[in-house]
Formats: sequence, C-alpha cells, structure tokens
Amino acid sequence: MKKLVNHPADLVSQALRGLAAAHPELRVDHEHRIVYRGDAPVRGKVGLLSGGGSGHEPLHAGFVGPGMLDAACAGEVFTSPVPDQVVEATRGVDGGAGVLHVVKNYTGDVMNFEMAAELVAAETGLEVLAVVTDDDVAVQDSTWTAGRRGVGATVLLEKIAGAAAEQGRPLAEVAAVARKVNGSARSMGMALTSCTVPTAGRPTFDLPDDEMEIGIGIHGEPGRRRVPLAPAHEIAEMLVEPVLADLDFTGSPAVLFVNGMGATPLLELYLMYDEVATLLGKAGVTVARSLVGPYITSLDMAGCSVTVLKADDDLLALWDAPVRTAGLRWGA
Amino acid sequence: MKKLVNHPADLVSQALRGLAAAHPELRVDHEHRIVYRGDAPVRGKVGLLSGGGSGHEPLHAGFVGPGMLDAACAGEVFTSPVPDQVVEATRGVDGGAGVLHVVKNYTGDVMNFEMAAELVAAETGLEVLAVVTDDDVAVQDSTWTAGRRGVGATVLLEKIAGAAAEQGRPLAEVAAVARKVNGSARSMGMALTSCTVPTAGRPTFDLPDDEMEIGIGIHGEPGRRRVPLAPAHEIAEMLVEPVLADLDFTGSPAVLFVNGMGATPLLELYLMYDEVATLLGKAGVTVARSLVGPYITSLDMAGCSVTVLKADDDLLALWDAPVRTAGLRWGA
Repeated sequence: MKKLVNHPADLVSQALRGLAAAHPELRVDHEHRIVYRGDAPVRGKVGLLSGGGSGHEPLHAGFVGPGMLDAACAGEVFTSPVPDQVVEATRGVDGGAGVLHVVKNYTGDVMNFEMAAELVAAETGLEVLAVVTDDDVAVQDSTWTAGRRGVGATVLLEKIAGAAAEQGRPLAEVAAVARKVNGSARSMGMALTSCTVPTAGRPTFDLPDDEMEIGIGIHGEPGRRRVPLAPAHEIAEMLVEPVLADLDFTGSPAVLFVNGMGATPLLELYLMYDEVATLLGKAGVTVARSLVGPYITSLDMAGCSVTVLKADDDLLALWDAPVRTAGLRWGA
Repeated sequence: MKKLVNHPADLVSQALRGLAAAHPELRVDHEHRIVYRGDAPVRGKVGLLSGGGSGHEPLHAGFVGPGMLDAACAGEVFTSPVPDQVVEATRGVDGGAGVLHVVKNYTGDVMNFEMAAELVAAETGLEVLAVVTDDDVAVQDSTWTAGRRGVGATVLLEKIAGAAAEQGRPLAEVAAVARKVNGSARSMGMALTSCTVPTAGRPTFDLPDDEMEIGIGIHGEPGRRRVPLAPAHEIAEMLVEPVLADLDFTGSPAVLFVNGMGATPLLELYLMYDEVATLLGKAGVTVARSLVGPYITSLDMAGCSVTVLKADDDLLALWDAPVRTAGLRWGA
C-alpha cells in the first residue's frame, strides 16, 4: 500500500489536525471529530449538520463554512460517525431555529443520525429534521444500503440548503429545499480502479486491467455490471442513459456535476464533461450551471460520476449565493 | 492504461471543449488552444499570460480569470506550447499596458516563450517581460531543464502577480512582484507512483511497490534519490529539510502550499499539512496563509510537494485579493 500515512488507524485524526491548522476560520473538536464553522452556532439561523464516513473528502468537512454546513461529523474511513458525535454536533450548531441533518442513505448513517436526533429532542426539546439523500440510480439495494445510495446530490444539496439557511429561512423551508434537491437529482458513477482503505492495506475489490465497473458506489460497493474498458464517449452514455431514464430533465434549467472519484485527473474530467454535456444537449436538457472536480471521492479510486439536478430559479439563485468553505468557495 | 479518454492524442483538445462548456465566463480559442478570460484584453491592465505542457491541471488554464491570468496556452501533454500559440495569446491579452509571461523553467517553454516575445515585440512594439519560475530545490539540472525546475511557486506567483495586475500596477511593478515571489519561494516534491502519459500508454518510470522517489519533477523526471517507503512524518522531513536549508524563512509571514500530484486523496494531503506545518513551527517559521490540494499536478501520479513562500504584507494582501478562476476562487 502506497499512502502518505503514519499509522493507518490515525489517518482521520491527523488529517483533522491538518485541516484545523490550514483553515483557522474553522473550529475543530478533535475529541468528537467535529468540524464547525468558526462562529457556530449562528444565532437565529437553522443549523445545517452533516457527516459520514471519511474518505470522501472534501465531503463533508470541506463544505463547512458560511453558506453551507455549520458542522460535519467525521467517522472512521467508510464508517458512520457514532450517535455521540452527532448529538454533540447537533447541540453545537443549535442557534435557536432548529437543526437539519443531511444524511446519505447508508444504513449506519441513517440509524446513527436518527438515534442522535431522538436523543437530542428528548433531552432538550430542540427540533431536528433530517433529509436523506438517495440519488444514485445504479442499484436499488446495495452492500450498506436499503434503497438507493446517496452520492453526488449530497454536494449540491449542502450548497443549496446551506444558502437557504444562511438567508434565514425557517427550518421547514430549509428542509423542503433540501428535499426538493434530492428529489430532483439523479447520479450514476463508474470505477476504473478500486480504492484501498488504509487500515485494510489492499484494494477493496479486484478489477482486471481491461475491465471497469459501471454503477460503482463511493465505498467500492458493486455496481450494475462489469464491462470491458471502453472509450470515454461510451462510458458517458452508460452513465447518462440511466440518469435520463429515471427523471425527465427537459423544460427546466439543469445543474451538471461531473465528479472525480479521487485519482482521476481534471483533464479527463473535463473531457467527460464535454461528452456528458453533449449527450444532455441531444436529449433536450439545458445545462445552466456546472461543477467539475473531485468533490465526493472514494479515497484513491480512479473513475467518475455524473449528477444532474433539475433546478428552478430559486435553486439556481441559492446555488449562486456566496459560500466560503475549504472545498467550495465563491463570492465570499 | 485505464483512463477516461477516446483517442489519447485528442485528450487536450477535447478537455478544452469541456472547459469551455463548463465555464462560459472563459473564452477558448480552440484552433490555437488558448484559454482567455472572457473580457480579455482588459484595457489599461497589464496582460498576464502563462502556459505550458498539459497534464498539470488546474495549472494553467484553471487559473485564468479576473485576479489571476488573462490567458493560458495549452501544449500537448508534458510538451511546451509552440511559439505561434504564444504570439497569438500575447496579442490577445494586450490591453495597452504591456504583457508579462509567466514561464516555468523547462528548456522548451523558455525557448518558445522567448521566441514569441521577440516576434511580437518586433512586429508590434508591444512591451513583453518574462518571469521564469525555478523554485524546485531538488536538483540543479534535470531531464528538460538547465538550472532548477519551476513548480509550486508558479501557482502562488500567478495568484499574487495576477492581483497586482488587476490593481492596475504598471508592467515593471507586476514583474517585480512576480520575481519577488519566485525568489522567495522554494519547493520539493515526492512521488509514490509514476504517472502515465496517455499517448505512451504505460507508466513513465518504474517504481517498486516498496520505494518512493524524493525530489520528483512534475513530468516524472528523476529526483534526488529512491528510498524505501517511509511514514508520512519522515517524508515530511525529507521535503522540508532541503527547503529550509535553501532559504531562511524566519522573521516573515510564510505561505505554506501542500500540493497533491494528482492521485493522492485530500485526507493524505491534510495529514501531510499537519506534519509540514509542525516542522515549520519547530524551525521558527510562522505560517500566515495556506493552500492544500491538487493545484499543479502530474496527471495520475500519487505523491505531493511542499512549497513555502517567504511573504510580506504586500504579498499577503495580493494573495488575499479576490480571484475568480475555475481552479482558485474567492471574494468574487
């Protein structure tokens, strides 16, 4: 295993120390592994909290800051944060207007966030709502999921709901915006190579040199099928077709997000963007906003995913609103 | 070779089409492979132009926009742009206040930018100055370089000189700021794996599973030495020691840039940041600003580099100034 680590089991803790040192505008609770925006809790604002297993950076800690998340709980690599972390963070982002949990649909995450929400509500009366992302059209159930997996829509949702919270919208409205994003987004991913979990020390799965996995999950969960390596334009079709088959994206402005899985160069991602945008154009989908880069990754996996969001004027304005985080920043 | 490509020889052209589609605020001359900020040339402003071989994205095209470069010329992968491209781009960014070329110190780049500058000056009388970056302390001469190689300082220089140009400073002053950044920055990199050039189809060099290369160049040029794989804290020492030995960084605020070579996850880069910042602290160096991520890459190479810039109040203010590019953006 070739990685920049000391003891694999300490990777997450030490990366959080680096994050805290590099970004003094954040506040890191190292004991609970929670990354807060420096001024949390923000009085009168809905607290937006997410988290999940590590290994998908910049998601989620890289999206903490004004205009996006108030805090993120970091679990071990590919492992849900425990309820205690989520309880602590929920209290820590409570500015008096309630808290929204953003949870990717994996069994452990959903269970632990639910448990934490109940504990906090019972102890403090704080209102906690949750939105669970499940935008991955690849598979109905998977290794760690009942239903669809939550993937790229999570990035778009955290940005858009974060802007809604920053504007001072009430909890029910922020939750409605978040649910609208999840309900209007679809994703599909693929892998050229496996990732390697540091504590495991070897690739999660075997993928021959002449094959790729279509419909891969962000933890290396199996996709729809193994197929022979193909040119980028065929790969783009394999990703776009099931996305468009699942939702009618015509008639509304779309946000197109071409995501890198971690080890795929930007040059290839922009080439994929060209292929995907061309296919969407042929299908009558109008792309109004774009995001290209590694934003929800799977450690050192090579590959990409495509997320399309069917937006409207409100969602686009929230997308455009200022954001200031380590991983996504503009206008601030 | 596992890559998201169609025909390897078309990768750069097609990636530029994707870049143009994803970033309508840029203007791309596909014939000459030049990426311009949409409003270039900006009247009365020094034109800042860079470029080089592709494969280092987001450098340089990802740094085109207000507050940074006016344009970037894209060569083939790891191949200098030709003089014709640079001539065309130099004219294209001429706003009447002269043009500054930012050139990484590789023989082909230096020669082609020089030739273009002479051609333009002879034909039009336009004043063109150049700054050549050579911040890599690893080796004195290398595969494609006489003298030191230009690496991470180029990113910091393009940001800082870009801000100086945006403020309306005259050509001589923008060039002086650029030279100050290059003269005050030192870098050192390492590789865990080779990169694979798409048209070659196989790794540029062989690196056994239990070895790494210290002092690697961004095209896979040999470094100082092959050594056995080591924990991150030892790698950090191997990178920081030669940087600190080359320049006294105490007594001034420093900018610390921990760069990913392309395939190394952010989690590992933040861990490296923690190690490097700790070493700098022990050496009495005060880090005032930080940048962590893959900003000057080597295709799909795994590894990292460290750049330290000895700054001052002017350079820090220019660093903090608004920038709006595909690869680096804040305050705008």
